[in-house]
Order: sequence, then structure tokens, then C-alpha cells
Amino acid sequence: MFDIRPILLVVGILLTTLGCSMLLPALLDLTLNNSDWIVFAASAGLTLFVGIALALVTWGRTAKLTVKQAFVLTTATWIALSAFAALPLSLSELDLSYTDAFFEAMSGLTTTGATVIEGLDRAPPGLLLWRGILQWLGGIGIIVMAVAVLPMLQIGGMQLFRMESSDTSEKILPRATQIAGSIATLYFLLTGACAVAYFLAGMRLFDAVVHSMTTIATGGFSNYDQSIRAFGSPMVDTVASVFMIVGSLPFVLYLQATRGNARPLFNDSQVRFFAVLLVILIAIAWAYQIQMTEADGTTALRYATFNVISIVTGTGYATTDYTQWGSFAVVFFFCAMFIGGCAGSTSCGIKIFRFQVVLEMLKAHLLRILYPHGVFVPRYNGKTLTDNVTAAVLSFFVLFFLCFIAIALVLNLIGLDNITAMSAAASAMANVGPGLGSIIGPDGNYGDLPGEAKWILSFAMLLGRLEIFAVLVLFSPLFWRQ
Amino acid sequence: MFDIRPILLVVGILLTTLGCSMLLPALLDLTLNNSDWIVFAASAGLTLFVGIALALVTWGRTAKLTVKQAFVLTTATWIALSAFAALPLSLSELDLSYTDAFFEAMSGLTTTGATVIEGLDRAPPGLLLWRGILQWLGGIGIIVMAVAVLPMLQIGGMQLFRMESSDTSEKILPRATQIAGSIATLYFLLTGACAVAYFLAGMRLFDAVVHSMTTIATGGFSNYDQSIRAFGSPMVDTVASVFMIVGSLPFVLYLQATRGNARPLFNDSQVRFFAVLLVILIAIAWAYQIQMTEADGTTALRYATFNVISIVTGTGYATTDYTQWGSFAVVFFFCAMFIGGCAGSTSCGIKIFRFQVVLEMLKAHLLRILYPHGVFVPRYNGKTLTDNVTAAVLSFFVLFFLCFIAIALVLNLIGLDNITAMSAAASAMANVGPGLGSIIGPDGNYGDLPGEAKWILSFAMLLGRLEIFAVLVLFSPLFWRQ
Repeated sequence: MFDIRPILLVVGILLTTLGCSMLLPALLDLTLNNSDWIVFAASAGLTLFVGIALALVTWGRTAKLTVKQAFVLTTATWIALSAFAALPLSLSELDLSYTDAFFEAMSGLTTTGATVIEGLDRAPPGLLLWRGILQWLGGIGIIVMAVAVLPMLQIGGMQLFRMESSDTSEKILPRATQIAGSIATLYFLLTGACAVAYFLAGMRLFDAVVHSMTTIATGGFSNYDQSIRAFGSPMVDTVASVFMIVGSLPFVLYLQATRGNARPLFNDSQVRFFAVLLVILIAIAWAYQIQMTEADGTTALRYATFNVISIVTGTGYATTDYTQWGSFAVVFFFCAMFIGGCAGSTSCGIKIFRFQVVLEMLKAHLLRILYPHGVFVPRYNGKTLTDNVTAAVLSFFVLFFLCFIAIALVLNLIGLDNITAMSAAASAMANVGPGLGSIIGPDGNYGDLPGEAKWILSFAMLLGRLEIFAVLVLFSPLFWRQ
Repeated sequence: MFDIRPILLVVGILLTTLGCSMLLPALLDLTLNNSDWIVFAASAGLTLFVGIALALVTWGRTAKLTVKQAFVLTTATWIALSAFAALPLSLSELDLSYTDAFFEAMSGLTTTGATVIEGLDRAPPGLLLWRGILQWLGGIGIIVMAVAVLPMLQIGGMQLFRMESSDTSEKILPRATQIAGSIATLYFLLTGACAVAYFLAGMRLFDAVVHSMTTIATGGFSNYDQSIRAFGSPMVDTVASVFMIVGSLPFVLYLQATRGNARPLFNDSQVRFFAVLLVILIAIAWAYQIQMTEADGTTALRYATFNVISIVTGTGYATTDYTQWGSFAVVFFFCAMFIGGCAGSTSCGIKIFRFQVVLEMLKAHLLRILYPHGVFVPRYNGKTLTDNVTAAVLSFFVLFFLCFIAIALVLNLIGLDNITAMSAAASAMANVGPGLGSIIGPDGNYGDLPGEAKWILSFAMLLGRLEIFAVLVLFSPLFWRQ
């Protein structure tokens, strides 16, 4: 028998948390005499009611999860939270359809940053705060999952980041609670630091707070239709660049650094690879821009640095329409979308360590071809890569691209043009945000897409955020077999 | 010490063969009083001179190849043959540059079928025959390599098709000679059957012979700018469809069938998978076409069947501009390019068995995730898939897509638009022929591309034909280390 009670309990607790956090925008709107406070208060009431009810009904059956329950829990949480988080968005004065509201909520919680809202500059502050909170919660949620849950589910090679080899699925809940505590503190402090930096760089306090939440979460929601460009400030660009990178590094390494051991942060092969890759990509974007546009060296460097970091980390802020640089820029940024940051960070995409594992594996494979009688074992960060891990990583690559192609084809069939369909699929799966082309490019938004496309893209965001397997597994008959 | 003499010997022997086959178009042109016979005779003389000289100088050191020598040999043969096969093309009355001639020769020998020649309808018959011969030789060449050489080099999972587990690289040459004999006979007979069928379907004898050579080789060179459409005959379409499929099945199974055991041909899991896939893809193309165009059911089925088979098998004939059906058709045919036929056939692309191996591996991976303590071994065609094989197959996928992206990006930088760059890269690597878009689409040709693009695409064709690894290995410092 599949016991759904532990799942409902966790969903209940998380909905309660979500309901509580709806009180913040309610308070803000109330203070500013904005009528939308009723919407947030009502949504909080409903969410709290459902959350507390679920928790109470299922209370007392904690701490032991089977692998199957853990899989269902992972997907169920994200869907349930998005469904309720969409309530205030759909009821607010912006008058979004529930489809639009769900898309926006999923985009927030998965830290994607794709938006359907036009006219952000005139939107009520409570709503803007709520979008920031969603990405902020999504960011901490994914770090906790990546550190505590996914490694034990052996998804996509995340088992590389198991902290103790004795971890089993039964320890998921206690461990998640414990790690969540220390990482949440750190996450809170880093967000605070980012907000202060934004404030010093010239942002209004409110903008600084909201943007710090969406920066550290590599989410990319902004309070302005023009995104970060609205500030037109190199200082703001710099602060954003720094904290997008901060959000893309493995948070466990920060924990170790706060305990006095900063060396892993600088010696970690994932971090180093990420740094080198960023430098190379920025150099390419810079050189191409200088050759193709009339931008001077400094301006080009500023645009290249900011936008490459924004796309690679999957944040999705924009400070210029880079697709205007030339047709190579379109393909360049399209490919950059897939990369992502480090495992155990708030960023999404394929992620750095998977590229490293593949490179190591290709090297070992090459050596085996050349010396058929030798024994060659791929290694990562000093550890031996087992066949299980390499198979998991390669399965991830294959599934990622198959899903990408399938989603792009379906979007295409619905009537989206090729560039919109392909970039929307890639951007959603890699949780980047903006796509390419005139509709959903860095200057556009997702509002005009047909409703079906929004549901498909919501699914794609979920798929990407939960490392594909955690969601797809549920569609397999093997999973449901006794 | 790296001993290149065995390599030069094989190259010498193959150049001699190539030189002899140049005498056929020379004879044809002489009979028809066409002045181009001198070009072919002169090229034959030069090629024979170099070939025989190489063979004589290195004679007596046969039969033992190291793995490294086998790798160098594989790539060197294809390049040397293309370089000499290009001679008559560049000297003929068509007045092609050597770049164009090399591109055409490489396209022929790799059975790609991309052409730079416009005005095929008025081209001298010797030249058309030569293009047919190149694809025909390339087809038999790749079968022999796939059966005798690649499995021992453990490239891309081809070790699945080793015939005896005791095969080692030292046996490559004797084994290749032995297999080449029986398969060449079969290949010759199948080509004959195809030529007779084309003739009965209404082609002129000359067209029937040339097209039979390029059909069985899944090459796709035609004697007409309009390709197979020039005949406007459903019968010709049908004959072509049947023999494109014949060319895409594993030739070893035909050998077994001629020995009285036809069951493997129908029971082989690769063949079955291929058949089901073709039916599904044809159904999609048919349904889409009916919905989007004014074609009636029968006409739509004719176009869907022919063009899906042509693209999936990597032949590249066209009977209609399918990109006009709608934007989904563009993405659909783009994806179909990558598929390819069965291993051990004349077709290229990723190939059916690799998709099967990946599916088996994903299934085993899924089971392992769900039941962490169970043991799940992926199987293929009744055999256990070792980690070595799955790693090789997955490395192939990853490298194929990385090379595809790299080549598309470079073509883009050279100035090709996105759709031309991407489809040219895919079409060349999968040895299909036509690309997409107005320049190189089913109605265009490669003549107008810049010279650099032609060299890059020649390289891409070689890369795809030799299963990526066999070429890339040579660029690795590890390979050249003592």
C-alpha cells in the first residue's frame, strides 16, 4: 500500500509556511493603504486553513519515507505550493487568469523568472514583494532539496554530493530539517548583504529588498518591465553580477567557510571550472560585441559580463537586448542557457559538475580505446566516479535533451514559431527566464502566449527544477508497480 | 616509434582501386565522344601512379596493425581518397574550384549527398557516373569498416557488433579482406536489383544505374537538380523508398539470410525498432501535411513516406519542399536528420541501436533509483550491455551533440544564418545531404556557401561518417603520447 499521509503532512507544513509568508505582502499593502491587502489576507487564510488541516490530520507519522514516497513528495510539494501561491496573483487588481497566475507562481518558486505581467512598474507593491518572496523561498527550497533529498534519490548524479555514505531515504526528513536550519540562516544573511549592497548602489529600499531576494535565488523577477536596465547604473549591474555568482556556488562550501575552513570554496573543482568558463564566455561575448556593434570596450565589457552571468546562472535579468548584436549572439546565448551554475546552489540548468563528469568520462573512454588492456577510472574532485554516477549523469543529459526536443516540438505544434518554441523550452527547462525572439526575448514577456503553452512551460520549469528524473519517474508504469 | 608504412600500404591499395574506377567514366565519356574523358584518364593516371608507388614502397609489411595505426588509417584513407577523387571533378568542364571538388568528393565518399553543382541536368555523363561511383564505393567502404574495423576499435558502442569475442586489432586487415569479399558480392547484387527496378519503373538505363548506386549507398546524389522529383513518378518513388530501407539495414543479416537463415533479419531488435519508428514518423508527417496543406490523402502519404525515409536513412533525395508544409515540419525534419539507420548498413546518423541502448540504460537506471538494493542489468538483443558499451554509446551521444553545436556556432560566425548553419551542421554530421532554409534546403544546393564553410562541412561529414571518435581521437594529446 502506498501511504500518502507523510506526504500530506509535509505538504501541509509547507503550505502553512507559505500561508504565513503571504501575511508579509498583506501587511505591506495595508501599511501603504493598498486595497490588495485583502487579497493577500484572504489567500493566507485559505492557504493556512488547508495547510494546518492537512498537517493536523496526518500528524504523528513523520520521519520515515520510502524512496517512492520521497519522489511523490518532491513533485507534489512544488505543485501544491505553486497552486496556492498563485491565489493572490490571480485575485489581485492585475486581474490575471488562473493560468497566468499559476505560470507566474511556478516561475517564481522554480526561480525561473519568466513573467506574464506587463506593467510591473505600476503593479501594487504587495504583489511585487510576493513575487520576490516566491523566488526567495524557491531558492532556499532547492538548496535544501539538493543537499538533503536529491543525493539520496540518486538523481542525475547528485549522489556525488552525499555528505555521508550511510545516508538513506529514511533519514531524509530529519536531515532536511537540520540542514535547512543552518543553510537558511546563511541564505538570509547573504540576502541581507545583497540588499545593503543594492541600497548603497542607489536602489530604493523596497527595490533593494525585492531584487536581493530574486538575485540570491538566481530567479530574475524584477520590479520593472525593463528589468535591471531600469536602474541604468553600472554599480547596480556589478552588485547583481557578484550576487548572481554567489547564488550559483555550492552553499555547503559557504557553511564550511563560516566554520573557518574557506579552502574548499577556492579549491573545489566545480567552482574553479565555473569561474574559468564564465571568463571565457564573457570574453567571447565581449569580443563579438565590439566587432559587431558600435559599443566601446568598457560598455561592451559591462554588457557582456552582466548578461553572460545572468544567462549562465539562470537568473534572467537583462540590461540590453543582446540578440541585436548579431545572429551568432542568438545561438551563443541559446547554448549558454543550458549551462547553469554549481550543484547545491540556487541555479538550475545542466550544471557544471555534469559537464566535468562527462569530460572525465570521455577522457577515461578515450584511454580505454587506445589501451584496451589498461584500467582507467574517471575521477571527480578527488573521488572515484562509479559507473552508477556516470550512468546517472549521462542519463540526465540524454533525458534533458529529449525533453527539450519534445517540449519544443509540442510548443511548435501549438503554433509558436521555431525560435520562440525552442528558446521557451530551453529557458523554462533551465529555469532561466527570458527566451529569444521578439515575443519572449529579453525585451518581451510570456503574457501573449496561448494558455496551453503556459501550462506546458510550467511543467517544463518543474521538470528542470527537479532534475527531470524526480518528475518523470512518476510517469513510469514501473514506478507504480507493486 | 609510430610506423606509418602499413597505413601507406592500405592507402596505396585503395588509391589504386580508386584510380581503376576512374577508368569507367573515362570509358563512358570516350564512347559518347565527350572531351571530359581526358580529365578522367589523366586523373586515373595520377591516382594510379601515386597508389601503386605507395603500395610498392611499403609492400611486405601487412596484416599487423596496432590500435593507433588503425585509427590513423581510418581517417587517412577517407581523406586521401577524397583528395584524389576530387581531381576529375575539379578538372572537368564544370570548372569547379578544388574546394568545391573536395567537398563534392567527400560528400560522395561519405554517402552524404550534399552537392555544390548546379546544372546537373546538363553535366557530362562521365561526371554523373563518377559521383554515383563515389557514393557506391563509400557505401561498401563503410559497411566493411562497420563490420570489420570499428567494433575492434570499440568506438561508439560498435563493439556490440563484434562477430567473435577474440577479435583483436591485429586481425583487422585479414578480416576486413575476407568480409569485404562476401559483402561486396551481396552489395553488387542488391545494386543490380535496384537498377533493374528503377529501369522497370521507367528510368533511362543510365539514370537507373547511377541512381541505384546512390540509393543502395543511402547517398542521395542524383543526376538532376530536382533530385528524384525530376521523374515525377510514384513508381520511382516506391522503388527508391524500398531500396533506401534495404541500404539502411544491417548487411550482415543479409549474409545470414543468403545462407538460408532469414530469421535474424526479421527478429533483429534493431530492424524491428527501425520499422516501428519509420511508421510512426511517416504517420506524423502524413497527418500534419493533410492538416496544413491542400494535398489529398494519397499524395500526402506518398510525400510523407518518401521524404521521411529519405531523411531518416540519411539518403537525402527530395520529392517536395517539405519545409513549406509549416514550421513544425522544419523542426520535425531537423530532428529526423539525426536518427539514421541500423549499424552495419550504409546509412549514417546516430543510428537505431544507440537509441535502443540509451532506452535500456534509462530503464535500468530508473529501476536502480526505485530499488536501490536491486541489481539491474541493461540488455540489448539478448546480450548483456556492459558498462563499457553503455559508456561508449553515451559518449557518442554527448560528443555528437557537442560537435554539432561547435560546428553550427563556427558556421554561424562565418556568416551563415542560424537555420542554414544549424541544418548544415546536422545534415553534414548525419551524412544526410540537404539542409533547411532557402539556401541549402531541399530546393537549394551548397554551391553558394563561402569556401571556409565547405571545408568545415567536409570535416563534419568525415566526423559523422567515422563515428566521431575515430577522427577526434587524433586531435587528442593522449593519442600521440608515447
